[in-house]
Amino acid sequence: MVVEIFPPYPPELSQTQLSYLLQALTDYSLSHGLTVRPAESFISEKLSPNGALATHAPITLFPSPFPRSCWEAGRAVQKDYNELYARVAGNAEWLKKTMVELSKVDDFTARLYKVHLDVKAEGFVQPLSLGLFRSDYMLHMAAPEGPKTPPVVHQVEFNTIASSFGALSTRVSELHRHLAKMGAYPPDSIIKPENIPVSPALQGLAKGLSVAHKAYGNGGDGRSTAILMIIQPGEKNVFDQRWLEYELLEKHSVQTYRISLADVPKLTDLASSTQALIYSPPHAPNTQIEISTVYFRAGYGPGDYSGEDDWAARTTLERSKAIKCPSVITQLAGAKKIQQVLAMDGIVEGFLADKGVSSQVRGTFAAIHPLDKSPAGIAARKLALEKPDTYVLKPQREGGGNNIYRGDIPGFLKSIPESHWSGYILMELIEPPSLENTIIRNGGLMSGGVVGELGVYGAILWKDGEGEERGKGLKEIVMNEEVGWLLRTKGRESDEGGVAAGFGSVDAVLLVD
Amino acid sequence: MVVEIFPPYPPELSQTQLSYLLQALTDYSLSHGLTVRPAESFISEKLSPNGALATHAPITLFPSPFPRSCWEAGRAVQKDYNELYARVAGNAEWLKKTMVELSKVDDFTARLYKVHLDVKAEGFVQPLSLGLFRSDYMLHMAAPEGPKTPPVVHQVEFNTIASSFGALSTRVSELHRHLAKMGAYPPDSIIKPENIPVSPALQGLAKGLSVAHKAYGNGGDGRSTAILMIIQPGEKNVFDQRWLEYELLEKHSVQTYRISLADVPKLTDLASSTQALIYSPPHAPNTQIEISTVYFRAGYGPGDYSGEDDWAARTTLERSKAIKCPSVITQLAGAKKIQQVLAMDGIVEGFLADKGVSSQVRGTFAAIHPLDKSPAGIAARKLALEKPDTYVLKPQREGGGNNIYRGDIPGFLKSIPESHWSGYILMELIEPPSLENTIIRNGGLMSGGVVGELGVYGAILWKDGEGEERGKGLKEIVMNEEVGWLLRTKGRESDEGGVAAGFGSVDAVLLVD
Repeated sequence: MVVEIFPPYPPELSQTQLSYLLQALTDYSLSHGLTVRPAESFISEKLSPNGALATHAPITLFPSPFPRSCWEAGRAVQKDYNELYARVAGNAEWLKKTMVELSKVDDFTARLYKVHLDVKAEGFVQPLSLGLFRSDYMLHMAAPEGPKTPPVVHQVEFNTIASSFGALSTRVSELHRHLAKMGAYPPDSIIKPENIPVSPALQGLAKGLSVAHKAYGNGGDGRSTAILMIIQPGEKNVFDQRWLEYELLEKHSVQTYRISLADVPKLTDLASSTQALIYSPPHAPNTQIEISTVYFRAGYGPGDYSGEDDWAARTTLERSKAIKCPSVITQLAGAKKIQQVLAMDGIVEGFLADKGVSSQVRGTFAAIHPLDKSPAGIAARKLALEKPDTYVLKPQREGGGNNIYRGDIPGFLKSIPESHWSGYILMELIEPPSLENTIIRNGGLMSGGVVGELGVYGAILWKDGEGEERGKGLKEIVMNEEVGWLLRTKGRESDEGGVAAGFGSVDAVLLVD
Repeated sequence: MVVEIFPPYPPELSQTQLSYLLQALTDYSLSHGLTVRPAESFISEKLSPNGALATHAPITLFPSPFPRSCWEAGRAVQKDYNELYARVAGNAEWLKKTMVELSKVDDFTARLYKVHLDVKAEGFVQPLSLGLFRSDYMLHMAAPEGPKTPPVVHQVEFNTIASSFGALSTRVSELHRHLAKMGAYPPDSIIKPENIPVSPALQGLAKGLSVAHKAYGNGGDGRSTAILMIIQPGEKNVFDQRWLEYELLEKHSVQTYRISLADVPKLTDLASSTQALIYSPPHAPNTQIEISTVYFRAGYGPGDYSGEDDWAARTTLERSKAIKCPSVITQLAGAKKIQQVLAMDGIVEGFLADKGVSSQVRGTFAAIHPLDKSPAGIAARKLALEKPDTYVLKPQREGGGNNIYRGDIPGFLKSIPESHWSGYILMELIEPPSLENTIIRNGGLMSGGVVGELGVYGAILWKDGEGEERGKGLKEIVMNEEVGWLLRTKGRESDEGGVAAGFGSVDAVLLVD
């Protein structure tokens, strides 16, 4: 069921208004780096020698209305989320039970966890960890049958690795604000520049990286230091990453290099005495750069590891003295299963001692249940079989797999052995309000019902215990900030009852009271 | 003969260095709006719905060395050039003789001059004129046989209308500086960021427009005011223009609209009492905007006037109360013939009373002669027939036509009736020093000998006499600034002896002492 809470939206445009808006939007995007490399299906790489072409990122024609209170709520809780996940990641002892269990159903988790254990056995040499997190929320109509109930934000997932679109979130909010300012939207519409805040995610994420870089200190043997970004070969979302490099160089005088996991063994080495990560750029092979911070924009899914060499590369990076953004254990803390465990009674409260804080964090949780043989799991199994209409069944695997919705849940569960049920979690379906918008992608327009996901970015640098103390809880938070937000807007498929489907776009919030 | 004055250049790159540099250059350009819409021959418009694609502007891989003294000399004289051309444009009485003569050999000049005379007969209602000029120079080896003689700048032409690439000049100098800063050039090369000054042309040209806009004052009947940019339909160099709009809106809170000459009758009207130019945007047809300033990025050549409607449109704009950038007479003052007349003894000195100033301006002139029956013309005819080796013959027509070089001049002159000779001017061939660079266009590379043209931008707002005093010399200079520079670098075709040929690119200066 879809609830109306926003004024009629978007404004209707004449053909002339649409063409004016479209031209202004396209030109602004293409000149301000709100861009991606065209998909192979749009423009073949053969037509674009040396990557000479860019197209605007998939974007919405209008900023999407978003309740101001919900935007504030999501932002208000981000520093606490940063701390929560830093504390989880810093407590490998606590994570152990879940990781061992999860490893049984998910090879990717098993493999990652092995990297952590292998390096742990050798001893970690770097006490600092950097997290550039993004907590994703949807608007939820807590009582969809009563449209007067104000919406709240419920968390969809928490990203601890490769949180993307930060720079593009800054650019798209600047775009929509500019379009409002220049009068490209009908003057009698609710779209006013002052209600389109500019997301500072580009600046904030770069600041997080620069704080880590500076905390690392000087390189050994007079080496200069730099950040190493681990990227996917052929990345189309390259400008979102490049903006961070530009900001780091221009504002913080920090140099960044980009390499793929496959290039790690060829181009890096560990200094034998300090385990400093030494990078020799292929364009200046006689130069030795000491890497202060490894920033992963790849390595988050099984598809990024094509073989043993890539796993060895990940292990080398984890073993090094460089600050990892994120460390393997921090990446693992972002598992869906952890999200479910944190939702259990008393767990968040154990990590965040302040009752007010933990209750605010818990207030953004969607109901999420195990399907194992614990008492909570057995209760959830009953729900899944008998009252599945407001639930989605999600595999615990990080590598993906299809979600099962509502009435399909009982049949699906009965079709697989009961021993496999614990490989899934049962999550309350989030019921977003009704909204329409137009998404532009590759120059083509698609209009209709949409759902938005608010992502709030956080940057946190913390110090873990050293030696025997490592893995027993974090020691010190060096920096902790909320650094901006993103709205990702996707086509709504009514069959999936509010779960985002169709292709996605970056969008700005239009705050409504 | 080509003279070597620069250190060996550009630095040699390994394949890895080239690929690193190329990727950095392409990504920076595509994210910072150093872009153009792809030419139809590169990517068909059918493949790019709604103009969804951009490619980097044609650019050089390396900034081109340029003697610091020559760069300073070109900049130092710009305010004087601004004043000179404002004084020429303000003195229609003085221009009359040349315009009548030129009109006989050039239909385009004749037609433009008629627009001026028609509006003059009605009476001009706006005393202010804006000039956004660009004076183009080449490096000239005054004594090419003696390589120790330092180069000087000699003027190629002076642009009084639609001086383009201002915004891209800012972006390309930022690009080359960034590449130097990030270490994309070999560290032992002469390319250092501190020797690549950033051209402030984008900011300066926008400032010029905003000063005119503010000087115009308030609109009548409570109308809001804006700038109207006259553009060519299907302009590929659109981002160079858009940046001025963005700067005007963000820094000066001035709104700009873009229309073609063909749209002028449909979308504008003159207020009967004041002749204020009223624009009704097609996307908001009930809004009346009063145009403070008409900024021409079209209308500079005969190809921009497809018929009588376009000439009527130009006349309407000229007749209006809006400040013109430029007025028709200012456009005419930029004729090559005027450049030649100014070079004659005493002429510049008549416009610029200060002897030091006029002699500095004259110091940048290339030798340029009439081929008419005046004493100077008769002397030049002798040169052309007997010692043509350091000359180029240029048609006076503004609509183009081929230049004739060196030894081809006598034969050409003999092949046409002597009565046509006065339709040409004889200009000293500028002898630029030897230089190599690589130009990147549509992702493809071309390396080899190049010649550069330094364009220096100026912004000047002046007040002409009113009523009977109009056309008898300007009354007041309201603003006069040098606002930046551009290097345009083209492939060198040795047959044309230093005259730019091949395709052009935007480039930054690398200052050498």
